[in-house]
Amino acid sequence: MADGLVLSIDGMGGDAGPQTVVEGVAIAARRWPQTRFLLHGDESELARCLDRHPALKAVVSVRAAERTISMEMKASQALRQGKGASLWNAVEAVKDDEAHAVVSAGNTGAFMAIAMFRLRTMAGVHRPALTAGIPNGRARMTVMLDVGATVEADAEQLVEFAIMGEAFYRALYGVERPMIGLLNVGAEDQKGHEEIRAAARLIRDRRIDMDFRGFVEGDDICKGAVDVVVTDGFTGNISLKSIEGAARLVGQFLREALTSGPLAQTGAALAYPALKKLRKRMDPSTNNGAVFLGLNGVVVKSHGGANADGFAAAIDVAVRLARSHYRDEIARNIARLGAGADQSAAEQRDAS
Amino acid sequence: MADGLVLSIDGMGGDAGPQTVVEGVAIAARRWPQTRFLLHGDESELARCLDRHPALKAVVSVRAAERTISMEMKASQALRQGKGASLWNAVEAVKDDEAHAVVSAGNTGAFMAIAMFRLRTMAGVHRPALTAGIPNGRARMTVMLDVGATVEADAEQLVEFAIMGEAFYRALYGVERPMIGLLNVGAEDQKGHEEIRAAARLIRDRRIDMDFRGFVEGDDICKGAVDVVVTDGFTGNISLKSIEGAARLVGQFLREALTSGPLAQTGAALAYPALKKLRKRMDPSTNNGAVFLGLNGVVVKSHGGANADGFAAAIDVAVRLARSHYRDEIARNIARLGAGADQSAAEQRDAS
Repeated sequence: MADGLVLSIDGMGGDAGPQTVVEGVAIAARRWPQTRFLLHGDESELARCLDRHPALKAVVSVRAAERTISMEMKASQALRQGKGASLWNAVEAVKDDEAHAVVSAGNTGAFMAIAMFRLRTMAGVHRPALTAGIPNGRARMTVMLDVGATVEADAEQLVEFAIMGEAFYRALYGVERPMIGLLNVGAEDQKGHEEIRAAARLIRDRRIDMDFRGFVEGDDICKGAVDVVVTDGFTGNISLKSIEGAARLVGQFLREALTSGPLAQTGAALAYPALKKLRKRMDPSTNNGAVFLGLNGVVVKSHGGANADGFAAAIDVAVRLARSHYRDEIARNIARLGAGADQSAAEQRDAS
Repeated sequence: MADGLVLSIDGMGGDAGPQTVVEGVAIAARRWPQTRFLLHGDESELARCLDRHPALKAVVSVRAAERTISMEMKASQALRQGKGASLWNAVEAVKDDEAHAVVSAGNTGAFMAIAMFRLRTMAGVHRPALTAGIPNGRARMTVMLDVGATVEADAEQLVEFAIMGEAFYRALYGVERPMIGLLNVGAEDQKGHEEIRAAARLIRDRRIDMDFRGFVEGDDICKGAVDVVVTDGFTGNISLKSIEGAARLVGQFLREALTSGPLAQTGAALAYPALKKLRKRMDPSTNNGAVFLGLNGVVVKSHGGANADGFAAAIDVAVRLARSHYRDEIARNIARLGAGADQSAAEQRDAS
């Protein structure tokens, strides 16, 4: 791994199969010429896909895997039976220091379970968190975490998510001091669950190094009121899917409106290039690449339905993270969180 | 109250003030000719507004109130200082059996607090719940509850919300067996918080009389996968506001797309009638009227920013509920929930 980055890619994941993965790698290889790829999966199938991309020969090594984990397999089953599968081996390459990051468009639950089992959480981090990028009308997305890795999070875990989200956003977008908010049902100090109020106090009391803006509400996510929205996996998952459902419904309303009569249809035809751009703006694959944060390794999940451009976008995220110092930054703030705890304990001893 | 319905209206609530309220009442009075209205607020101001609507003279009685509760006042302050305000008196008229329902576009927190304090929860109902109607592309909205009255709900309270939501949906839309779902992060039995899994078991074990469809996810809300989505006030509030934020953002994207150049603008002009209908479809005031369920009285909150049509829509909700037997139906299912508890206790005694 001496010169340049090595990415471990699950060649078999995603709804569209290896062809889309390989095309995504081809786009990424042009974008990141110093990067090499380990491509895990069925040897003959991957060879066939690679035949169409002779330029990849120099930067891709195929690693034969004897099986694949289906999109439907339960995480528990994947943990028991997944050894030797392309997804498993792709994670293993990071564990074995053969690669700097792993990217897969495969089964999310299985990917999270295997990555968690093989890579383990970073020192001081209790639970991992999954990120999502959500459009807000500006150039940079709103990042929300956790959106489904950790269903219940206590105050300290929420602060760990805030620390991880902050470092992640800086690595992704190069913003020195991203704004951090805690998702709640109101902006006032006394609102919401006790864990959330306690998390806000912890961030302030332990002097965690971040631009913390306090509580934000559900409509602040798409408004982009802060850069990083912190919440537990239950609330984050429901909020994210609520947003996806709403965007899909408005899209459906728009289609219905623009096909409702000859005048509307003519209007839509004239506005077609603008509407196409709108569609692209709302397309999930333009902000593809969810990250499973808090592990000893960079773990990036591409949307199962992403096309080649989408898969390449997920690889972009992996490259940016692997090149950054986000794990050192996380470790630094996690140490403050821990040091604060020691100090509080010491103060309590002194007081008594 | 012998013949016909009497509605108690807070004449001073809402961003636009008494004029909009009175115009909303005028629309409702034409729609529901047998209904009378008690209009609470500043006597001279209301008289001035009513002057423009001579037809209302016969059905509206003005009840002078010496003050109003501002939109910014905290709920706790409203409880201490609100006595004699238009909102307070409007609630009091239901408490005193002078009116069948109360409608206000005023301060939500103050309205909930005063209604809760004066009307109290129905026998067997532990906590109230606030409803929201969310578009789903069909004629009838998805109803979600709770969206902010009860931040934390245990399993039994979630079942009470399901029972209230079911009866509410039937009263509102005349659907005999509305489909009920519990909001969760997956459809499988083992997903989510323990309270939610326990609530699902309770609905089945106690044979609550409803068409219960199990767990639904965030994107099922705008899909209309079920008629009634049940959740706690924390999750419901965040989900609802996430949806509102997403819809607003897509609307903004659409406006930007359709003003991005002369061709797009011409297209938008041609499609204008269709786009206007789309706008109406997404306008919150067309599905106005949130209900504060579980109290001894019908309590309807109109959106603060609703126009006269919106306020009339909130009155529609109040009329439909006041005419229905929804509180008897709630009481019947609540009794099942209680009886099941007695039975379980008896079974446990027998087993030991």
